[in-house]
Amino acid sequence: MPAQTSSDGGKWKVALIGSGNWGSAIARLVGKNIKERSDEFDTEVKMWCYEEDFDGRKLTEVINEKHENIKYLPGIDLGDNVVAEPDLIKAIEGANALIFVIPHQFIIETCKQLEGKVPSNTQAISLVKGVDVKDGQIHIFSEVIKEHLDIECAALSGANIANEVAKEAFSETTIGCRDIEVAKRWARLFETEKFRVAVSKDVLGVSLGGALKNVVAVAAGLIDGLQWGNNAKAAIMRIGLLEMKRFALEFFPGTEPETFVQESAGIADLITSCLGGRNRKCAEAFVTTGKTFDQLEKEMLNGQKLQGVQTAKELHEFLKARGKADNYPLFTFVYRVAYEGVKPDTITAHI
Amino acid sequence: MPAQTSSDGGKWKVALIGSGNWGSAIARLVGKNIKERSDEFDTEVKMWCYEEDFDGRKLTEVINEKHENIKYLPGIDLGDNVVAEPDLIKAIEGANALIFVIPHQFIIETCKQLEGKVPSNTQAISLVKGVDVKDGQIHIFSEVIKEHLDIECAALSGANIANEVAKEAFSETTIGCRDIEVAKRWARLFETEKFRVAVSKDVLGVSLGGALKNVVAVAAGLIDGLQWGNNAKAAIMRIGLLEMKRFALEFFPGTEPETFVQESAGIADLITSCLGGRNRKCAEAFVTTGKTFDQLEKEMLNGQKLQGVQTAKELHEFLKARGKADNYPLFTFVYRVAYEGVKPDTITAHI
Repeated sequence: MPAQTSSDGGKWKVALIGSGNWGSAIARLVGKNIKERSDEFDTEVKMWCYEEDFDGRKLTEVINEKHENIKYLPGIDLGDNVVAEPDLIKAIEGANALIFVIPHQFIIETCKQLEGKVPSNTQAISLVKGVDVKDGQIHIFSEVIKEHLDIECAALSGANIANEVAKEAFSETTIGCRDIEVAKRWARLFETEKFRVAVSKDVLGVSLGGALKNVVAVAAGLIDGLQWGNNAKAAIMRIGLLEMKRFALEFFPGTEPETFVQESAGIADLITSCLGGRNRKCAEAFVTTGKTFDQLEKEMLNGQKLQGVQTAKELHEFLKARGKADNYPLFTFVYRVAYEGVKPDTITAHI
Repeated sequence: MPAQTSSDGGKWKVALIGSGNWGSAIARLVGKNIKERSDEFDTEVKMWCYEEDFDGRKLTEVINEKHENIKYLPGIDLGDNVVAEPDLIKAIEGANALIFVIPHQFIIETCKQLEGKVPSNTQAISLVKGVDVKDGQIHIFSEVIKEHLDIECAALSGANIANEVAKEAFSETTIGCRDIEVAKRWARLFETEKFRVAVSKDVLGVSLGGALKNVVAVAAGLIDGLQWGNNAKAAIMRIGLLEMKRFALEFFPGTEPETFVQESAGIADLITSCLGGRNRKCAEAFVTTGKTFDQLEKEMLNGQKLQGVQTAKELHEFLKARGKADNYPLFTFVYRVAYEGVKPDTITAHI
C-alpha cells in the first residue's frame, strides 16, 4: 500500500525545527512516543540545530554522540532516535509533520528559507512563544508559518516550563488546531502519562495566551517586589487574565473565551509564569534593586529575552494606534513602568 | 423625617457578629467607612465578642480601652467607633444591618440565640467561610442565616487574607446579593481605595468558592510537598477550579460559572489560598513530615481548623451518597489521601 498523506491515516514523518531548551525537551517526548506508536509515526525524528561550537566541537556532533543537548538541556537523555541536523533543508527532507520550536525572532527568516520546499500536504505546529507585531498589526506565529509555507499550522502552548517537562514532572498543555482529527494526531505525538494534552479548535487563543501572560507576569513580579502579599498578587493575576481574554476577543474574532479561563494555555500558563517565570523574577528585581529592565535582562537571563516587557511595548503601540490603551489598564501600566518611569507602587491608581 | 427602613434609602446601623482575626480586620474597614459616609450609616459599630480572659482582664474591656484586638489582630488600630460588646443581644440592639463573621461551627447556635429578635427589614451578610453538611445536604451559611432569622442574607468572599486586608495591602472581594441595590450599599460599607468590592447576584457561587477552594489548596500543598514544580501546581489549580465550578453548577442550579472564573471569590481566592494559605501549608507538611493531618492541625494552626480536609470529607459523603464521587476526581483524591491512606504521589493516576 502506498504511503498515505499526512491528513488521513498515513504515517507521519516528524521533523523538529529548533533545538533549544524547550525544543530539546519536546524532542525527547516525541522521540519516545514515535517508538511506541510506530503504526502512525516514522520512528526517527530529525531535529534542526543551529550549528555552534561547544568546547571546541560541533554541537550537533556532540548531541548525536551523547544523545544529550549538553548546552541547552544538560543531563537529559534525548534517546537514540532523535538526530540533530545542522542543515535546515536536510532536516525536513521527507518530513510531512513539522514542529516549529525556535525563538520568535528567527521564525520569519527560517520560514523564508523553507518557502517552496515544503509539500502542500505537510502539517505544522507552532510551539513558538510570543506574537509578531509589525506595521501596527499583531501576527500569531502559527498564522505566519501558514502564510509563508501555504500549509496548515496548529499551535501548542500551556503551563510548560521546559526543564520540568524534560524531567517528567506532571504537566499539561493545549493544542489548538482547526481540524480536530489532525489535532488528535498531534496529541498522540506529544502526550505521555505525565504530559497531558487537551485539544481545541482555537489556534488564536492558544497562541495569544502564551504571549499575553508574560505581561501579566511582569505585573505580578512588581507586586512581589513591593511585598504587597498574596491577596494583591491574586488580584493582579485575576485582572490580568480578564484583560488577556478581553484583548483576544476584541481584536481576534473567533477566539474562544474558554481557552483563557479553562485551558492550560490560558489560566495555568499564567499561574506557572506568575509563580516562577523569568518575567516575574526580573520584575521583582526591578523593584528591589532599582536597576533597569535592560540591565536585569543582561544580568539575570543569560542571553534570553525579557518577553513580557517587549510584548507590553508592542501591545501598547498596537492599542495606542487604535485609541484603546485606556481600556487595557494593566497592560498599559506595565508599559509605563518599563518605558516611562511610572512607579510600580502607583498600580492601584492605574488599574 | 422618620428613619427609613434599611432596604430603601434610610440609614443603616451596623453590627458585627464576630471579632476574630477576619472579623476585626473587617470591623476596622467598616469603622472607617461609616465615619466618612455618615449620610447613610450610623457612625458607631458594635462588634459582638465572645468574652474571654486576656492576661487576667476581659478581652472586650481591653479592646474598648486600646481600640485594638490584642488577641486576634494585634498591632492594628480598630478606631474609636468600633465598640466590642460581650452580650450578643445587646450587640445587635437597634441594628438593621448584620455582618456575620464567626467560625462556621458557631453559626447555627448563634442564629438560634437570635431567632425572633431581629426585625424583618434587617439586612444581613455572611463572611463565614465554608459550608454546612448535614443529613446528606450541603447548606450555604447565608441560606442558613436567612432561614433561621427570616431575613435576606448576602455573602462576601474573595482573596482576603485578614492580616493583609488589615494592613491596607491591595485586595479585592466579591459581594453576592440578590437585590443589586442592597449589594451596592454593602459595597459602600466595605469598599476602600485598597479594598475593592465587586457585586454580583450569585450568593451561592460566592459562598461555594470560599468553601471549595480549601480542598484544592490541600491538593496544591501536596504538590508542593512532592516538589513537582510549578507546571504541576498550575495544572492542579486549573483542574481544581473547573471541578469547583462543575460541582456548583451541578448541585446548586442558578450558580453563575463566571463567579468561579472571573471573580475574586473564585479564581483569585483559589490563587491566594494555593500560594500561602494554611491548607496548602499543612498539606505540604503532610508529605514532607509523614505526620497525620490531625497532628499537623494541632502543631501548626494554633487552634484553627484545617478546613480543606474537613470539607473534602463532607463533599465525599455528599458525592458518594449520590454515586458521583468518580466525577470529582480531585476532591475525591484529597479525601482518600487524608482518610484512606492513598499516597499523594499517585495523584496523576487518580485525576
